[in-house]
Amino acid sequence: MKVRRSERLIDMTHYLLDHPHELISLTFFAKRYESAKSSISEDLAIIKKTFRERGTGLLDTIPGAAGGVIFVPMISKEEAKEYVVALSERLSEQDRLLPGGYVYLSDLLGEPELLRQVGRIIASKYLGEKIDAVMTVATKGVPIAQAVSYYLNVPFVIVRRDSKITEGSTVSVNYVSGSSERIEKMELSKRSLKRGSRVLVVDDFMKGGGTINGMQGLIEEFEAELVGVTVFAEAKFRGERAVKKYNSLLFVEDVNTQTKTISVVPGNYFDEE
Amino acid sequence: MKVRRSERLIDMTHYLLDHPHELISLTFFAKRYESAKSSISEDLAIIKKTFRERGTGLLDTIPGAAGGVIFVPMISKEEAKEYVVALSERLSEQDRLLPGGYVYLSDLLGEPELLRQVGRIIASKYLGEKIDAVMTVATKGVPIAQAVSYYLNVPFVIVRRDSKITEGSTVSVNYVSGSSERIEKMELSKRSLKRGSRVLVVDDFMKGGGTINGMQGLIEEFEAELVGVTVFAEAKFRGERAVKKYNSLLFVEDVNTQTKTISVVPGNYFDEE
Repeated sequence: MKVRRSERLIDMTHYLLDHPHELISLTFFAKRYESAKSSISEDLAIIKKTFRERGTGLLDTIPGAAGGVIFVPMISKEEAKEYVVALSERLSEQDRLLPGGYVYLSDLLGEPELLRQVGRIIASKYLGEKIDAVMTVATKGVPIAQAVSYYLNVPFVIVRRDSKITEGSTVSVNYVSGSSERIEKMELSKRSLKRGSRVLVVDDFMKGGGTINGMQGLIEEFEAELVGVTVFAEAKFRGERAVKKYNSLLFVEDVNTQTKTISVVPGNYFDEE
Repeated sequence: MKVRRSERLIDMTHYLLDHPHELISLTFFAKRYESAKSSISEDLAIIKKTFRERGTGLLDTIPGAAGGVIFVPMISKEEAKEYVVALSERLSEQDRLLPGGYVYLSDLLGEPELLRQVGRIIASKYLGEKIDAVMTVATKGVPIAQAVSYYLNVPFVIVRRDSKITEGSTVSVNYVSGSSERIEKMELSKRSLKRGSRVLVVDDFMKGGGTINGMQGLIEEFEAELVGVTVFAEAKFRGERAVKKYNSLLFVEDVNTQTKTISVVPGNYFDEE
């Protein structure tokens, strides 16, 4: 039974949103809805226009026999900024201050709506890049990695500080923890990353950058390639950071344990390049 | 400027999919598209029909001044079964066998498409239940919890085996690890769960059920309520399990380290109740 345009538009929208960065042929949709390719083309033009106008993302059309469409989720810089400004206010809440000047983030990193937006914002920074995997370190980076992985539609891999029997053989590196200047160890399951993979590194929080630097070392061990680094929040750091190039959504510019105030502003994600 | 029906349908579909389990008023959509509520009602009827026919989920209409629509994602039992059968074949791959009879799962639990489906399948088991939070234990349960949390649109909380300074005050319980019969400790940040919350527990793997049992203890400590337990995979266990009632998507019925074979079948999720 032929499917009506209105129903096609609804289901195609759903399908595209669920399959970002995936080439979908016109034939696939034509079969799915028992409709002519010409009708499908018209549908896609309407979806493309709406996605663009609403800031949902880009719908790239690949012409030819092997062609089709690819949905690339994105967020406009203005919308991203607006969201991150609101987020920086939430992070500045006084009761987030923990002993030692740490900031409590765990509640935020468990909110699906926040993770969706953060995933979309981080993924938007790498629109033109080929990325094969997202890498993070257990435990707090995992939600960020998964959120980004949903929008890039590539797997995420989790580096661990403690070896687990359920990981199989691993490759490990030592790294200098920036905050404590101790030598620590991190490892990644051998089979989790292919040689030559292009890897995006994400994490929840960066101080000295030692952990991120460790992940860069692991990427080298796997003969893979680093595409970029984005952290949810960075803290002010006295001294030289182990990582030179990174993006941060938020910047914790000051934590005062005496006056019990936290000052958070948008990070360098929004700087002009 | 008034928005055309086709564009409304596309954007409403996107909006509903991004806001599951959330009451959205007709007024909200009417304003968003500068369209009459009667047109919005017609749009929603078309979306409701398409979502039902395609197995995307239910669109519940709440009448009255405070009314609107709620999108409830779901998957049909047939589609879920088909997916899990294919998954059980992937889990049975010989090279997943690790020393000690463990099964390598980390690659699967880093695949966005798998996590989307697993999240939808687990969430569908609790369609009629009020759930305030999803709980899991670090690290391997986190992707499952996040996936389910996306579909239920409620936060997830992460129980830890090791205390972290960035968690603030915690509540801890001791539990008996089923596999090793050792006494272990797990803890949860005090501010992460409100008293009286209705909690869904998920995890990647269950053997004796000791870890799940520990989480049940934590839920009691928080004076919260357990709604249910679902694990991605359960292993055969000799002896009495610490957890009586649970759902499993997959059942590892046999692991033979001699012949190097793993046998995985769909779990009790699909049993008739």
